[in-house]
Amino acid sequence: MQNVLKMSNDEMAETFAEWNKTELESYLIEITATIMNKKDDLTGKGYVLDYVLDKTGMKGTGRWTIQEAAERSVAAPTMAASLDARYISARKDERVVASTILKGPETTPSGVNKAQVLEDLKAALYVSKVISYAQGLGIIKGCSDDMSWNVNLTECARLWKGGCIIRAALLQKIQDALARDEKLTNLILDPVIAGEINERTAAFRRVIVTAIEHGVSTPALSGSLNYFDSYRRATLPANLTQAQRDFFGGHTYERNDREGVFHTAWTDSHKSIGDISERMAGNV
Amino acid sequence: MQNVLKMSNDEMAETFAEWNKTELESYLIEITATIMNKKDDLTGKGYVLDYVLDKTGMKGTGRWTIQEAAERSVAAPTMAASLDARYISARKDERVVASTILKGPETTPSGVNKAQVLEDLKAALYVSKVISYAQGLGIIKGCSDDMSWNVNLTECARLWKGGCIIRAALLQKIQDALARDEKLTNLILDPVIAGEINERTAAFRRVIVTAIEHGVSTPALSGSLNYFDSYRRATLPANLTQAQRDFFGGHTYERNDREGVFHTAWTDSHKSIGDISERMAGNV
Repeated sequence: MQNVLKMSNDEMAETFAEWNKTELESYLIEITATIMNKKDDLTGKGYVLDYVLDKTGMKGTGRWTIQEAAERSVAAPTMAASLDARYISARKDERVVASTILKGPETTPSGVNKAQVLEDLKAALYVSKVISYAQGLGIIKGCSDDMSWNVNLTECARLWKGGCIIRAALLQKIQDALARDEKLTNLILDPVIAGEINERTAAFRRVIVTAIEHGVSTPALSGSLNYFDSYRRATLPANLTQAQRDFFGGHTYERNDREGVFHTAWTDSHKSIGDISERMAGNV
Repeated sequence: MQNVLKMSNDEMAETFAEWNKTELESYLIEITATIMNKKDDLTGKGYVLDYVLDKTGMKGTGRWTIQEAAERSVAAPTMAASLDARYISARKDERVVASTILKGPETTPSGVNKAQVLEDLKAALYVSKVISYAQGLGIIKGCSDDMSWNVNLTECARLWKGGCIIRAALLQKIQDALARDEKLTNLILDPVIAGEINERTAAFRRVIVTAIEHGVSTPALSGSLNYFDSYRRATLPANLTQAQRDFFGGHTYERNDREGVFHTAWTDSHKSIGDISERMAGNV
């Protein structure tokens, strides 16, 4: 909004206030509008927001969430991106130096359609929020499954609807989705939620492309789109990674045409090495 | 290469073999060419790679790296994306279902220029590798600083050059950069390295845009670009996050026009609340 569309604080506040009357309605969208409108009392000039230093602190909940996601083998790139954004923001002195050394795009596309970008942004934010909730619920589900906690995710969604900073209209949809299928593997597989995402992906892609072309980072939005574009693939290039692991470490692989565990002698020098189980058993 | 350019295994192998004669020279590029060329002995038909199941295993080093990065407040989105790619790959059954529910782009741009995309890919891979090393060195530096280990990063780069799966021609450049400035804050701030990155960012952006438009996920490349586009900014929208934290939690903020710690009564209802230090001291 600021870099590409050159919007003023007033305009941005108005946009967030409008969004708060739609499917984006949430506490954070609401307070963002209020924050952007707030005049600065200390100087009597301009908006508070423009005086706030761009270094984000943290109490450790984000860190802990990401460490736990890794522990449970749950992908949470949108949430990880948010944490990384804080870490990078904290290195203000480094960034000031970097801004004189590392270059943005020399040319940017002309003729950005403001109304289109705003509509796309709204759709992208909605999809990314849904995918972020999917990741968060995935972490809780991962913990619950590993620990046999039997957490009721529908109840989680219900509880978050009140007295919580993530309060959002979306939580009712999430609660409904989980009520439809208690065993739902991933929020984005619910037919209603999936339909909402599918309707918005063209806009989602356009927004990130615009950001990339203008040199604006969108770590969380990109994290969500990459999650979506990986998760929706029946086959991924992970076969190459697994083959590499078998090549350099004899870690073996499964096949798609038969059951079992396999190891390939990729080169002549592999022939006397054996796979990792043989080497770990003491054989050469 | 496979999805957009429709390249065969032979063609891809040839490309990797060629890349291995350039600045991309490394063990992993080299073995990728070998892997892609390897015929399948079990069936006597086609390539091993096409039979390898797209589920990547892990021994825990990636997980541990990401948890440690979070612990040290170091952003490592490229490395985190690689770990997440493994986690998503492992959920093969879910992905097969997801592929019938979640939709890719309905239309994709026509007229992809293969030679250009390949040249761009090569540049993107190089930049992303550099940024990935920057993150890895950042984690080691973070640990070393926190623990007063006094790790010699130049020596790290030297050691990795031999007998290590990350062996790469790039490591000599990294060693040189660290030798030029032992206190280098971030690898990508070295003038030579920065120059190499700056020369390649247009290509880097084009590749990711092409991937997004074709619905191909590029989590690691995107992670690197977002890292670059955040880190090179003297100012980031982190002021909004910090203002939100002050709004909902009274976490206070710093200002860019004067020293000190500040709290704003964003609304009338904030007036009697006080900031977090007051509330933690027992005041209402």
